[in-house]
Amino acid sequence: MQDNHAQVREVGLRDGLQMVQTILSTQQKLEWCRRMVAAGCTEIEVTSFVPPRIVPQFADSDEVARGALAIAGLHPSALVPNLKGAQRAFGAGLKSVHYVLSASNEHNLKNVRRSTKESAEDFYNIMAARDESGLRDVKLGAGVATAFGCTIAGHVDETTVLDLVEYLLKTGADEIAIADTVGYANPGQVRQLMRKVLELTGTTPVTCHFHDTRGLGLANVVAALDAGVRNFDSSLGGLGGCPFAPNATGNINTEDTVFLLESEGMSTGIDIDALLEIRGIVASWLPGEAFVGAIARAGLPKTFHAGMA
Amino acid sequence: MQDNHAQVREVGLRDGLQMVQTILSTQQKLEWCRRMVAAGCTEIEVTSFVPPRIVPQFADSDEVARGALAIAGLHPSALVPNLKGAQRAFGAGLKSVHYVLSASNEHNLKNVRRSTKESAEDFYNIMAARDESGLRDVKLGAGVATAFGCTIAGHVDETTVLDLVEYLLKTGADEIAIADTVGYANPGQVRQLMRKVLELTGTTPVTCHFHDTRGLGLANVVAALDAGVRNFDSSLGGLGGCPFAPNATGNINTEDTVFLLESEGMSTGIDIDALLEIRGIVASWLPGEAFVGAIARAGLPKTFHAGMA
Repeated sequence: MQDNHAQVREVGLRDGLQMVQTILSTQQKLEWCRRMVAAGCTEIEVTSFVPPRIVPQFADSDEVARGALAIAGLHPSALVPNLKGAQRAFGAGLKSVHYVLSASNEHNLKNVRRSTKESAEDFYNIMAARDESGLRDVKLGAGVATAFGCTIAGHVDETTVLDLVEYLLKTGADEIAIADTVGYANPGQVRQLMRKVLELTGTTPVTCHFHDTRGLGLANVVAALDAGVRNFDSSLGGLGGCPFAPNATGNINTEDTVFLLESEGMSTGIDIDALLEIRGIVASWLPGEAFVGAIARAGLPKTFHAGMA
Repeated sequence: MQDNHAQVREVGLRDGLQMVQTILSTQQKLEWCRRMVAAGCTEIEVTSFVPPRIVPQFADSDEVARGALAIAGLHPSALVPNLKGAQRAFGAGLKSVHYVLSASNEHNLKNVRRSTKESAEDFYNIMAARDESGLRDVKLGAGVATAFGCTIAGHVDETTVLDLVEYLLKTGADEIAIADTVGYANPGQVRQLMRKVLELTGTTPVTCHFHDTRGLGLANVVAALDAGVRNFDSSLGGLGGCPFAPNATGNINTEDTVFLLESEGMSTGIDIDALLEIRGIVASWLPGEAFVGAIARAGLPKTFHAGMA
């Protein structure tokens, strides 16, 4: 891998689609994936193994996972909220599965109706289930949500986050994700926390998952880059939103994130013009949904070329 | 002045209003100013001394300047495009006047129908006119527009910008502003250029004037802070836009900029809740104009307190 490589993982099919009114067909979801791969974006979180009665959008998660695995060049992953979801993801044949728990106990209770401690213990069970099934080739990542603050609990201690990261690493996590679930992070906080996280993780990959709820999403990407983070989650057209802040924007926008990273001299391998084309297609499938993003409005600078610095 | 002080200058009455359809009354403009001062924002670019036939919004620039000078606590300034505009600003009694020229000769020709060299010579004439009129107490600042690239010419050389800064300083500029007029700047570029600018300016104040056209406005503020810049222009509600990119957003948003700076541990002296109230009032005066901004949509984080770090 080059020194200046940055990885952008598309989470619009998961974090984005869980917020929209329209249920996409399995075929549309897979077409979105195929087009992303053609645009150079090969890491996609394709679905979430939550109970369909909670999020009907993901009733087809098995089919999406199996279809995604058949797309050449794609590395599909999925989010799982618990052991049952993880077993479904393993069963579908996915080689990359992400588990998430909240640093804020209050948020964790609201999100999955159990304490952070119980969710942490469940990660141990999921890891054990993976190993007992002889699926050690499956990468099992773990994310810490509300790592920069919580709309319910407010302040979240850095040590709470770092202790969880240590536990997840000790339990065998193959990737650590640090998520600003509610858009509370600021650049100074990101730079400080991510430096400390990277001291703990060693060679384990670390991903930042930012929301742009309060306008600081891309500024936080720059701060994370400064700290040494090279992996970012983002959503095409900023699709999504925030269940805790109506009218607010959601994940950082994939097109704008790629634009920023390439402008900062990083190489993502992703073609922004192709992303804009996919954005138009996906938007046509989701009438009434807000698609945000500055590059879609204003276009690339005349001075832009990939990997600029 | 404290070490952690950052200055936010409101330019919505100038850069914002020059783009809108509705002409505000002089009384409305002055009420906007009064309310900003009450919110703690005491630096306001209140008008532009351009010919009224070019920008009818500024036909009342004399009255606005005189009215603003009568507001206790306010330090009003105005933009001037040429000697004639400067003489009108001096005549109105303003103690702070900003001149601007473009690093891109093509942009300068389009903007003021003369070359950058001719505009640079005119700054000398304006400075001489000020001194001959015995107005040495008037601060005469100079801004370099399209300092990070140009929608017409494309790339702008760093040395072109730095040579202009040297010339403006030698001619006696009391402030240097570096403007990303078209929203082309990226954080790496900002950090690098602003470090070099600050090496030249010594004790002369330096202001960054960013547009959020391509979503990197606040990320660029963080980069400029890193470089040592402490003065920023911004516009309430991001009012304005970009004449060169229809549908694009304009100046960085004042509320979001104050939120970012305070989150980064800087002290602006400005009350964000009061800004949001003024935003609502100004928006009611300007039907149909786009007011953008993340804090207005999502609210402040529960964890926010001024000067956080």
